[in-house]
Amino acid sequence: MRKFGPILALIAVSISSFGHKNDASVSIRKVITDQQAAWNNKDLEGFMAGYWKSPELTFFSGARETQGWQAALDRYRKSYQGEGHAMGHLEFANLRIEMLGPEAAFVRGQFHLTMPNGKTPHGLFTLICKKFPDGWKIIHDHSAGED
Amino acid sequence: MRKFGPILALIAVSISSFGHKNDASVSIRKVITDQQAAWNNKDLEGFMAGYWKSPELTFFSGARETQGWQAALDRYRKSYQGEGHAMGHLEFANLRIEMLGPEAAFVRGQFHLTMPNGKTPHGLFTLICKKFPDGWKIIHDHSAGED
Repeated sequence: MRKFGPILALIAVSISSFGHKNDASVSIRKVITDQQAAWNNKDLEGFMAGYWKSPELTFFSGARETQGWQAALDRYRKSYQGEGHAMGHLEFANLRIEMLGPEAAFVRGQFHLTMPNGKTPHGLFTLICKKFPDGWKIIHDHSAGED
Repeated sequence: MRKFGPILALIAVSISSFGHKNDASVSIRKVITDQQAAWNNKDLEGFMAGYWKSPELTFFSGARETQGWQAALDRYRKSYQGEGHAMGHLEFANLRIEMLGPEAAFVRGQFHLTMPNGKTPHGLFTLICKKFPDGWKIIHDHSAGED
C-alpha cells in the first residue's frame, strides 16, 4: 500500500483545496446577494458593507472614477437618496466568480435596476474581491451601463 | 551569529519575493505598453497578442459583452478597420498594477484615443491578468468610456 501514499495524499489535498475554493465562492456570492438584499431594503450602509472600508477602494462607474469607501457612499447617497431620486429594485444576474488565488477572486455579472419612473438602467460589472480577517470584501468595482 | 540566521533568511526571502512581485509588474506593464505600440502601428493582431487566446476570454465594453479571443478581434476589426473607420492614436495612462497572488494581477488605467476626425474617446479600464507558461496575458477586459 505504501507506494499509494503520496497519491492518496495528493487526492486528499486536491479535495481539501477544492473545498476551500468552493467555500470561498459561496462566501463571495453571499457578500453580493447580501448587497442586493440591502439595496432592496433601501439600506445603503448595508449595501456598502460588501466593500472594503478603505480610502484605497476604487469605483469605476463608466468613465468616472471615485476613490475611497466614504466617497463611494456619498456618491450613492447623492445619486439614489437625494431629492427626486429613488433606489429602485436591484437584481444581479449571471454571476461568475473566479478564484485568482486563495485570497483573491474576481466576479463578472450583470445588474438590472427597475426604477419607479419605469426606467431600467442595466449593465455589466467586474469586481475584484480580497479575503480580509473579517471576510471577503470588494476592493474594486467597475460598473458600466446604459439607461 | 547563529541566532540571526532565521532573520537573515526571512530578509532574503522577503527581498526575493519582492523581486518576483516587481518582475511580474514589469512583465505585465510590458504586455500593456506593447499593446499600445502595436495599436499605434495599426497592428491589431499584435495588439491582440496581449490577450489570452481562448474562447473563455471576456470583454466588457460598456454594457456589452463579447466572449472569446476571435470574437474580440472581429469586433475590433469591424469597429476600427472597417470602411470609414480608423484606429487613431492610443495612449494608456495612470496604470496601476496590483498583484493578487504569484500568478494573478489586476490593472486599473485610463485610455485616450485621438481619432483623425478630431474625436477623443476616453475612459477607464480594469484588466484581469494571469501568468501562463508563455507569459502574462489579459483574461478579462472591462473598458468603459465616452466620446
